[in-house]
Formats: sequence, C-alpha cells, structure tokens
Amino acid sequence: MPMQLQQSTWPEVERYLETSAGVIVPIGATEQHGPIGVIGTDAICAEVIARGAGETAGALVGPAIAVGMSEHHMRFPGSMTLRPSTLIALLSDYVGSLAAHGFRRFFFVNGHGGNIASLQAAFFEIYNEMRRAGFADAPRVRCKAMNWWQPEPVSALARTLFGAADGSHAAASEVAVTQFVDAANIKSAPLDPPVAPRGGFYNSATFRERYPDGRIGSNPGLASPEAGRRLYDAAVAAVAADYQAFLAEA
Amino acid sequence: MPMQLQQSTWPEVERYLETSAGVIVPIGATEQHGPIGVIGTDAICAEVIARGAGETAGALVGPAIAVGMSEHHMRFPGSMTLRPSTLIALLSDYVGSLAAHGFRRFFFVNGHGGNIASLQAAFFEIYNEMRRAGFADAPRVRCKAMNWWQPEPVSALARTLFGAADGSHAAASEVAVTQFVDAANIKSAPLDPPVAPRGGFYNSATFRERYPDGRIGSNPGLASPEAGRRLYDAAVAAVAADYQAFLAEA
Amino acid sequence: MPMQLQQSTWPEVERYLETSAGVIVPIGATEQHGPIGVIGTDAICAEVIARGAGETAGALVGPAIAVGMSEHHMRFPGSMTLRPSTLIALLSDYVGSLAAHGFRRFFFVNGHGGNIASLQAAFFEIYNEMRRAGFADAPRVRCKAMNWWQPEPVSALARTLFGAADGSHAAASEVAVTQFVDAANIKSAPLDPPVAPRGGFYNSATFRERYPDGRIGSNPGLASPEAGRRLYDAAVAAVAADYQAFLAEA
Amino acid sequence: MPMQLQQSTWPEVERYLETSAGVIVPIGATEQHGPIGVIGTDAICAEVIARGAGETAGALVGPAIAVGMSEHHMRFPGSMTLRPSTLIALLSDYVGSLAAHGFRRFFFVNGHGGNIASLQAAFFEIYNEMRRAGFADAPRVRCKAMNWWQPEPVSALARTLFGAADGSHAAASEVAVTQFVDAANIKSAPLDPPVAPRGGFYNSATFRERYPDGRIGSNPGLASPEAGRRLYDAAVAAVAADYQAFLAEA
Amino acid sequence: MPMQLQQSTWPEVERYLETSAGVIVPIGATEQHGPIGVIGTDAICAEVIARGAGETAGALVGPAIAVGMSEHHMRFPGSMTLRPSTLIALLSDYVGSLAAHGFRRFFFVNGHGGNIASLQAAFFEIYNEMRRAGFADAPRVRCKAMNWWQPEPVSALARTLFGAADGSHAAASEVAVTQFVDAANIKSAPLDPPVAPRGGFYNSATFRERYPDGRIGSNPGLASPEAGRRLYDAAVAAVAADYQAFLAEA
Amino acid sequence: MPMQLQQSTWPEVERYLETSAGVIVPIGATEQHGPIGVIGTDAICAEVIARGAGETAGALVGPAIAVGMSEHHMRFPGSMTLRPSTLIALLSDYVGSLAAHGFRRFFFVNGHGGNIASLQAAFFEIYNEMRRAGFADAPRVRCKAMNWWQPEPVSALARTLFGAADGSHAAASEVAVTQFVDAANIKSAPLDPPVAPRGGFYNSATFRERYPDGRIGSNPGLASPEAGRRLYDAAVAAVAADYQAFLAEA
Repeated sequence: MPMQLQQSTWPEVERYLETSAGVIVPIGATEQHGPIGVIGTDAICAEVIARGAGETAGALVGPAIAVGMSEHHMRFPGSMTLRPSTLIALLSDYVGSLAAHGFRRFFFVNGHGGNIASLQAAFFEIYNEMRRAGFADAPRVRCKAMNWWQPEPVSALARTLFGAADGSHAAASEVAVTQFVDAANIKSAPLDPPVAPRGGFYNSATFRERYPDGRIGSNPGLASPEAGRRLYDAAVAAVAADYQAFLAEA
Repeated sequence: MPMQLQQSTWPEVERYLETSAGVIVPIGATEQHGPIGVIGTDAICAEVIARGAGETAGALVGPAIAVGMSEHHMRFPGSMTLRPSTLIALLSDYVGSLAAHGFRRFFFVNGHGGNIASLQAAFFEIYNEMRRAGFADAPRVRCKAMNWWQPEPVSALARTLFGAADGSHAAASEVAVTQFVDAANIKSAPLDPPVAPRGGFYNSATFRERYPDGRIGSNPGLASPEAGRRLYDAAVAAVAADYQAFLAEA
Repeated sequence: MPMQLQQSTWPEVERYLETSAGVIVPIGATEQHGPIGVIGTDAICAEVIARGAGETAGALVGPAIAVGMSEHHMRFPGSMTLRPSTLIALLSDYVGSLAAHGFRRFFFVNGHGGNIASLQAAFFEIYNEMRRAGFADAPRVRCKAMNWWQPEPVSALARTLFGAADGSHAAASEVAVTQFVDAANIKSAPLDPPVAPRGGFYNSATFRERYPDGRIGSNPGLASPEAGRRLYDAAVAAVAADYQAFLAEA
Repeated sequence: MPMQLQQSTWPEVERYLETSAGVIVPIGATEQHGPIGVIGTDAICAEVIARGAGETAGALVGPAIAVGMSEHHMRFPGSMTLRPSTLIALLSDYVGSLAAHGFRRFFFVNGHGGNIASLQAAFFEIYNEMRRAGFADAPRVRCKAMNWWQPEPVSALARTLFGAADGSHAAASEVAVTQFVDAANIKSAPLDPPVAPRGGFYNSATFRERYPDGRIGSNPGLASPEAGRRLYDAAVAAVAADYQAFLAEA
Repeated sequence: MPMQLQQSTWPEVERYLETSAGVIVPIGATEQHGPIGVIGTDAICAEVIARGAGETAGALVGPAIAVGMSEHHMRFPGSMTLRPSTLIALLSDYVGSLAAHGFRRFFFVNGHGGNIASLQAAFFEIYNEMRRAGFADAPRVRCKAMNWWQPEPVSALARTLFGAADGSHAAASEVAVTQFVDAANIKSAPLDPPVAPRGGFYNSATFRERYPDGRIGSNPGLASPEAGRRLYDAAVAAVAADYQAFLAEA
Repeated sequence: MPMQLQQSTWPEVERYLETSAGVIVPIGATEQHGPIGVIGTDAICAEVIARGAGETAGALVGPAIAVGMSEHHMRFPGSMTLRPSTLIALLSDYVGSLAAHGFRRFFFVNGHGGNIASLQAAFFEIYNEMRRAGFADAPRVRCKAMNWWQPEPVSALARTLFGAADGSHAAASEVAVTQFVDAANIKSAPLDPPVAPRGGFYNSATFRERYPDGRIGSNPGLASPEAGRRLYDAAVAAVAADYQAFLAEA
C-alpha cells in the first residue's frame, strides 16, 4: 500500500491498523525565508522528509500541516500564521480523529522552530482532553515531535557543508533541501551582507527591525540541490530511525 | 514568478501585491472515498484545480487546507475531521494573515461539500472580527467559495461521462481527477452494488449504516484518467473565469 | 397538552417523551427588512409557522431563537447579530439540553438564510461533541433544518402572488406573513425603486452600498395580510409534513 | 412608533436613536417550575414586564433571551440551559450589536435568579472587550440588570399576597404573572406538601434530591390571574421608573 | 501534616483524602485600593484568612488565586484583571484537577466583590462540564464561595470599629487586615475627603470618574494593625465554622 | 517603595512607571515533587527567587502564578494543572493588564519545565492579539521567560553540590531551595532507590508508570537548607543580571 494517508483507501488504512498504531504527521510553516528562500520552505522540507521516512519505516504519513505559528514573520509579505490557540485546536482535531480509529503513536516531523511550543502545548492539551473525556485508551496515546534538522547526523552534515553560515532562519540547509525538491525553482537575489546577523527577537516588529531581509545568521547563497540531497538523505534516515524507536518503546 | 505562495519569496509576493489583491486558496478534506477512492481525494482535486486556475488567471495560490469538516465520515478508518469551530478559527487566521499584507479578495476552491457551511460561517465570523477590531480596510475584504464541480460546464461534463452514476460522494468524477493526477495509484476493488445507494445522512453512525462501503450514489468504477483530464480542464477554465470575475467586481 | 415547551410543565414534558423524541425549534433573526419590513420579520415568521406546524403535527415546539447570524445587515440601525461561533455554541446548548432529557430528533424551522451555514456547522459540531464525550445515545441524535419558504407549495404560492418581485431579502412573502400575524402594525413608506436591485453581497459594507434601503430584489409593497395568511397556511402544512417524515425516518 | 425592536423598521430605530441611547432587554429561562408552573415562566414574566415598562417609559425593547443559565434544573424534563460561557458570549453579541448603532445604556429585565452571575460576568467581559478593541465610545457604555421581583413595591405586594409561601422557585408570584398573561393555560396538579421545602442547592443532582417536584419554598397553588395582574402592574411601574433613573444618571 | 497544599507532599495529600474530601481555596484580586491600601489587599486578606481557617478546621488550603476580575479598576496603574471567561476557565481547571484526586467539596474564601459573579458562573460551568463529560461522581461535587467580610460577627465588628466609614472599596477593615499581616508596610498619604464618596459604577471609566483616588465610601485612615487582628480573628472563626458546616451537609 | 506589586499602592506604581517599563512575574506549578518534595516546590522557588531578583534589580515583581501546566503529574494526589489553553489565556490577561498601564518588558521567572511551551506559545498569542487589536504600542511589548535553574552559575553549583543525582524532577536543588525558604517544613521519607530512574514521559499514565514515587533522576535526600541558600543566592544574582540585560536591550 502507499505510505501516504491521502493516497490510501479506507480499507487499506483498516489493514494498516491491524499491524501498526503509528503515524507520521509533517508540520511546517508558510513564512518568509529571506530573499531567495521560498515561503513554503518549512512545509516543503517537513513534508518531503516525512514522506521519505514513511517509505523507509513502513509508516503511514498523514496530511501535512502547511501553515504554522509564524507571528514573528508577519511584517514580511506572504507570511501566514496560526494563533497558537488555533494550532493547538487543529492538532487536537488531527490527533483526536486518528485516535478514534486506533492510532496511538503520533510522530510529528517538524520543519519550523516556531511550532515547537505550540506542538508541546498541544500534546498536553490533548492528554488533558482525553483524560477528562474519559477516553478509555487515553493512557496509550503518545505524541512526539522531532525537528528534522536536529539529529546529530543532520546537524553535523549541515555544519560540514556550510559552517556557521548555515544560520538559524532561512538557513542554507533548509533552502538546499527545497532546491533538491524543486531544482527548477531556484531563486537568485543579492544577499547583503552575505551572512545575515544573528540574535533573538520578540514580536514581528523586532524581527523585521533586526533582520531586514528576513534571514537570521544564514547565507543561503551557499545552498545547492546536491547539498539538499545529502541533507535529505541524512534526515530521512534519522527520522525513520527515531520513529521506529518511538514505536518500539514499551 | 511562480503562482504558488509556497514557491515564492517574500519580495515576489510584495511585487505581486502591487498589481493584485487577489488570492486563491484550495480547501479539501481527508476522508474515506469508498473502496477505490483515496482518502485525499477532495484535497487532491481542490489543490490541483486551484493551481491550474492560478496559472490560467495569473493568481497567487495559497497553501491548501488538507483536512476539512468530515465528522460524518468518522466511522471509516483514516477519516479526519476538524470541528467546525476549529475550521472557522483556521480560516480566520488564513484570511487575517494575508489581509495584513494587503490581500483583499479571497477565493476558496472547495473540494468537499461538508466544508461549505463552515466556510460560509467563517466568512461572516471574519467580517465580524475585522469590523469589531476596527480593521481600517475591513469594508474591502471579500471572501468567496466555489465548489470545483458545480460550474455548469463541469457538471454537464460529469453527467455526460457518468450519468447518474457520478453520485454525490466518492463520485466517479472526483475519483477520475485523482486518477488523472496520479495514474500510478489507481485502486481496484469490488463495488457492490456497482452504483451505491443515494440519500442523506446525519451523523457518522447514520452515514455508515446507510452507506456501508462509504459511497453515496456513485459508481467510481467508471472513472478513468482520461475522464479526469477532461474534468480537470473544464474545472480549471471555469474556476479561473469565476476568479477573474470575482476580481473584476466593483 | 400545549404544544409549546414554554407553556408546558415538566411532568407534561415527561409524558410527551413517552411517545415522542421529536421537537421543533424556530430560529429567526433580528435585522433590518427594508423600509416597511419589521426588524423581527424572520423571527416572527419562524415562530408562528413553527407553532402552527407543532399544533398540526402534535409536536412540542421549543423556545424561539430570535437573534441569528446577520453580520451583513450591521450597517442598518437595529440589526443584531450573533457571531457564527456564538450561534454554534448556543445551538449546541439547546440540543444538548434537550438531548439530556431524551429528545433525539431536532427539527429547526428557519426564517433567515443567513442562519443556514451556522446551523449546518452547528449540527456537526454537536455530533462531534457527543461522539467525543462518549454520549451513549449519540448515534440516534439527528438534527435537521428547514427554511419555511422553500417547500415547493410555499415557493410556488409566493411566485403566484408576487412573481419575481417577491425578492430575496425583505421579501414580499415574509412581510406578508408578519402582516397576517399583526395586522395592526403594517408599515408604509416610499419604496424607490419599487422593486429593489438583485445580487449578492459580502460584508455589511457591500450590503449597504448595493442595497441602500435594505431590500434585495423585492417589492414588499405588494404584501398583504391575506397573502400572508395563505403563505402561512401553506408553510404550516409543508413544515408539519416534513417534520412528520423526519420523525418517521428509519 | 412601536416600543419593540422586533416590530420596528430600521428607519424607525434610526429616529429613536436621535433622542435616546437606551434599550431594555428581557432575559428569562426555560426550566421546570414545579408541577403547575410552566417551563417558560421566567421568560414569559421578563418579556411581558419588559414590554409593559417599555411602553410606560417610552423605551425600545429588544428581543427576549428565552433560555438562560439553568444547569441546576437539568434533572427535570424540558429544562434547558446555556453554559455560563455561552450566555456571556451571547450577551456580548447582543450588546455589541446594539452598541454599533449607538445604543449606550443597556437595561436587562431579568426573570431568573440563575442568570444573575452570568449577566454580571458578561457586563465586565463586554467592558473588557470594548476597552481592548479600542472601541472609541467604550467609556459611555453602561449595562444594568434588574430582577423584576426585587423592587420594594413588588416584593411587598408578593408578601402581602402570599406571605412566606411565595417561595423562591416556582414562586406563587411568578406563576401568578403567567396566569395573568395566559389565563387559558392554568395548570392544576397536587402539591405535596402544599408549601415546598426551603434551602439551597449545588448542582442538578442536589437540586432534584432536595426538591423532588421542583419547587423551593413555594405554594404556587395560591396564584391567581388577579394576583398576577397586580404584580405585573407593580413590576411594570417599578421597572419603568428604574430604567428612567438609569437613563438620567450622569 | 501542614494545612497548605503547597507545603504538603503527595503522600500526605493521599492520606488527607482518606478522611476528608474538602478543600479551601483563597481567591483575591490585584487591584488598586486607594492611596494607602496596597494593590494586593484582596489577595492578602483572602489568603491569610483561608490559612487561618484551614488550621482551625483541619482543612487543606489550596494555592491562592491572586488575580481576579477587576476590570472596573483598570484606569488605576498596577491593577490587573482576568476576563470573566478566563477566570471561569481557571476555576474549572482548579476544581477539575482536585476532583480528579477525590476532592468533592470546594470552599472558596473570597476577598473581592468583583469575583462573585465569575465564581458563581464558574460553579455552574463546572457542574455542566462534569455532567456532560459523564464524570461518574459529578453529583457529589459541590462548590461554595464565601466573602470573608460578610459573616455577621465580622461585619458587626467592622461597624463597631469604623462605622459607615468602613466603606465598600479600599475599606478600612480590609486595609486593617493587611496592616496586621505586614505592619512594616503601612502606607500614609492624604485622604481627601477623609471619607470617600459612595455609589455604584459601571466600567473602568465611570469608576475613575466617580472615585478619583480609588476609594468607595471608606476612610482607610482609620485602619490599624490591632483592628486588623480583631477582624482576622473574627473572620477565621467564622470561615472555619462555615467550612465545617459545609462539610457536614448531607 | 516595595518591590512587590501586591505591597504597593497605585500611586507608587504610577511613580515606578515614570522610570521603568519592566516587571518580573514568577510562575511556578502545584504538582507532586516526590516523597519529600512539597507540592508547591516550583511556585515557592520561582516566587522567592523572583522577589530576590526584584530587590537586587530594583524591579517590580507581580503576583506569582502558582498553578501551571502539570498534566503529566495528574496521577499523583494533590497535583493541579491548567490546560495549556487556559494558561495562555491567563498570561494574555496578565500581560494585557499591565501593558494597559505602560509596562512593556515582561520577564517571567519560571520554576517548572512543563510551563515553557505554554509560556512561549502565550507570548506569540499575545503579540498576535495586540497586533490584530491595533494596540498602538504593540511593537514595543516584549516578553521573555527564564528558568531559574538554567543560568550557568546556578547549574554549575547544582552539579557541584549534587552531581548527576540532582535529577530533573523533584530535583535536589529545587527541594534545597524550599528547605532554605522554610526550614521548619523539611520532609523525611524513604527514597527507594535513592536516585530515581531517568528518562522521558508522555501523559500522566506513562509518568506514573515509569516514576512510581514521582521523582525523575533525583536524590532529593541530598538537599539541605544551606545548599538551598547557595542556590538561591546564585539564582537571584543570575536572574537579576538577566533582567537588567533584558531592560537594557535596544
């Protein structure tokens, strides 16, 4: 059977559930990624890596969440954000829907740092709701999120490829993965300075003020489809392995 | 520039906004579509047709909403649903985010009948929120939803191709479009009876009871990639035309 | 026993539930209806027709919902609106309260097109809530809404009486029903043009701009108490029949 | 012009607002009132007294809120309740809608003790919302609620008529008012004991346990249409006077 | 064991629950209390009296709710408010958490009149939620709130000490209790007039306009630590007695 | 003036705001801390350290949030939790209230790891709300959270004092701080094994299963008031320094 929920029929899902209660859900964002990174970068990376990991691990992959929590990017045209409270409600509905069919282990492949807090908050909102609603199998429901760029093999490769110029937003590594995915859509624009400033931020105003072209600490001009392929391979392997370990937990 | 928001950079969106305040957003569903229709049928159709229409009309296409309001399908494995209240909150965030950048005309290409009520409700929730928040340009914000299968040329073609056996859920026409999109993933399974029973439904229990394999009134066994191509072409043309008329309204 | 919940005692309701699990709930709106239509038109029509149908069908009639979703009328003094999300919460409480006592079939007589989306959205919100809360009898709960003006005998009569000048807001037919209900409160004012323009609308700003006196496509100057009586009779018969068919469904 | 919003046209409301920014809103409940009190007692009393006071004071009367906060009555068939949070949202929409047109002084005539907390909570929720939304005229918005049975002339009359047997739920006085309103619908049933026990309650379980037939401290068998008429007259006068004092406040 | 939840271990609480299902929760406010009353007055009084009563009655005392519903004080620097809807959600979580462990009788010691409506509304929201969620022991859950200044011995003592100059906000009695609690933090400032004006209020604008220094009807200059000690003793005794009566109820 | 909001008058806060727009808010939790750690550990530590830092830095300290997000501890008696969504609403009200008076920099001293996600989510919910409500000074509002145990001097000291046996829940270091604060309330109970197992968790069921006495990786038997004093001193210095750096940021 196909490893994507969207490409499966309900009888295929019924059969899948006879042998597995695990599912992978990609979650990204729709937000500016500097002058040459596309707005869908986080969603594209999360989705393609989740699908690759699903193929590797024999796991069903649910529909991607394309818009995440990107309030801090809202001063750049095209950026979209869910309120954290909306994202929590959305995640509750995703998990609750699949839990109704027997899924019990929910593995989120995350492509956007800004989602982490809402994801973690949502997991406990979900545990709380299920406990209070008296959902019989609530104790067996487990949610986990993993940022695709964080496993040691992936972050080590990014350092090897780009050094400190990988950066932390509109990173060379994530732009590279999108170039690998869609080599026909590689952007070109002046990057001034080549490596963007580093630091933190608060709201959308401080973000734009500190990072006028949207990048943090990165030089995405270093990205290439080939680098993207290597990062993709590393991420898929790491995510698949982590998912399998998650399923194997007692 | 690309016609998909996800494939654009923020400076590209900034330039787009100099000449257009319109955007197309596909919305589908993740729900059973009978023994041979894939769970992502509604999302796949909405997204591909929205993208085609965007290319035709020169319109930016936002990220697809892949999970919709499918409560009535929840007795079939793999179906997912947002609560209507969650979907309303999500749509408010989508529209509100893009409105902050100057988008004013929001055209939803809908792939799922079950979304219609929540879409319409959301539009008025959005108008209400913007009015009460004192959003200065609230009077110019307009939202419209269109079901891709409803324009006369599309529905006429579906009747020509399938007659009454097109049906109203897991329809031959929508299955055909998914076969056109992904000819490598055509399913085969017994359909008994060939044409499913017709009728209405209430909750997920009545749905499953009345339509045990998930279809309503349809014989998706009649679908073919070629029929899907013709329906796709008709729908893209109709959606593009309707979008342009929407933009041209005074 | 009386057929209105408000006029019944709780022991009377207890007895009613021994033989019926059905209830009729009128829902209207509080919004401008042009220069001579009263603001309560939708609520008045829904309530009087629901009560008539209740008498005919032997059905209990619950308290009317007098304020509905009328955001688009908010630029006319006196119009009131619930946010769709509030209306959904309200409907959930109505249905949930009565379901706690054993009511299972909820038939809404609707007097306002703007309520339809919120009603449909609410029904699925309710099914979702009951399913997730583990309400034992959730599968038997059914909600249905009917617009009193839509049954063929009613719409045919309106066409006969007023032709195209019946219109779609501040319609001659609904104004006629209010005149039949309260012949002492018939308004008179210039209608210029006699038949208002037709078309659609988005938010309250576009509504007022396109329909400066509040009417859409109608000439309510054609209304009369006698026409109202005939429409009332037709609607009561049609609603009662539809309710009985709803109760009789397997 | 008529003194009910529902019976007015929008131009009539526009004219009313030229001389007054006040409005009266009746709010009742739909809950058991013992063996011979009707379920709509609180709504009926609030509505009829509000209308009478509106006529007396020249005040516009808005649509009645027929279902209130009656959670504690939910073990008696036919009782309906809004969650306090729903009632707060509803009241926010009522006041917000009318405030958009220029109404500034909102006078609620309340027919149900169980509504008081939600009404008061709602008033501050509304003040908070308006302040935070930057509603320019927020400082001038004032909300007040009055229980129709509390003014000294009314409570004194009730004591004169019924003494301690008036009681505090399914009271002789409120039942009398409903008998005055609808003398054709006077119920008769054994009341055992004639005067119900007194006391407090917590949830619906403790209520039913302590007050098995639904009454608290009352003997509604003492009620009569004539007593109802006297109470109605006293309440109308007191409510009208209090409303006028409210409008006259600096 | 200690009588404060915060100072207990979980095994101590487990043992407590073997003999009692009661808990006391102090709730105050963080709002201006005139020129010499501290902003934490309501929270300080509620907490210290609740703790004293807990010691007297052998009752566990939960963590204090320090910020309450103080919208009307928001024009004075330092005042904080929860929206009523937030306070209701908070109280639902407090009660729901402790009910999960077996607590059944919740006694709130309240230090702020502005909390009363939200507390009462919350109790019924909680009863509603537990009933609808099917919480098995819902019928046994009881919530009660008591204002520490209202028992006859306390109010009589306040009258004896301060007469009418006790007032109703920034009252001499509550300021005295805070002076007793923290004699090192007694403020001094001109009070002009010595006794503040009396009356009602609506929103924060009317409050500040009518009571420019924040006091209502009070002369807190009369307060003393010794008066505070006497009031504290009276309140502790009264609260402990009322709590014990609450526990003893059938 | 005192450095606690609760101990200040409104004129004192008004003067404080003339020279500073910063405020410190302690946030803890009310949850089991193993056999000898008190349930209020996180709240006690956060509050005492915040107050110390406030004194050091000349910063106003707001009222402590005593109950946090502790869903995973709910299988241990006495643990309390807010839903993440409630905590977000609460934080929005805290920040919004103080922002209305001119506070702009909000520094949360956090005592509980489980709060982090909700805090971060809340900050962006707040930025979103202020932006959408058109709050004029929204760009200047900044929120930051700091875990008191994370600054290098504090964590280094904890390692020196306890090594790996400090652990990650019911940690020796936090128990030590509570012993320093209240040396009269030091608990004693068998700890078996002396150092608790390490690891992760999901919901309350997995937590209790893996950590039967509530501790994770810790031996709180190593705690002492003297160790607590040293940790307190280190934390106060680090928090004060970090707060001052936060205020000094451009």
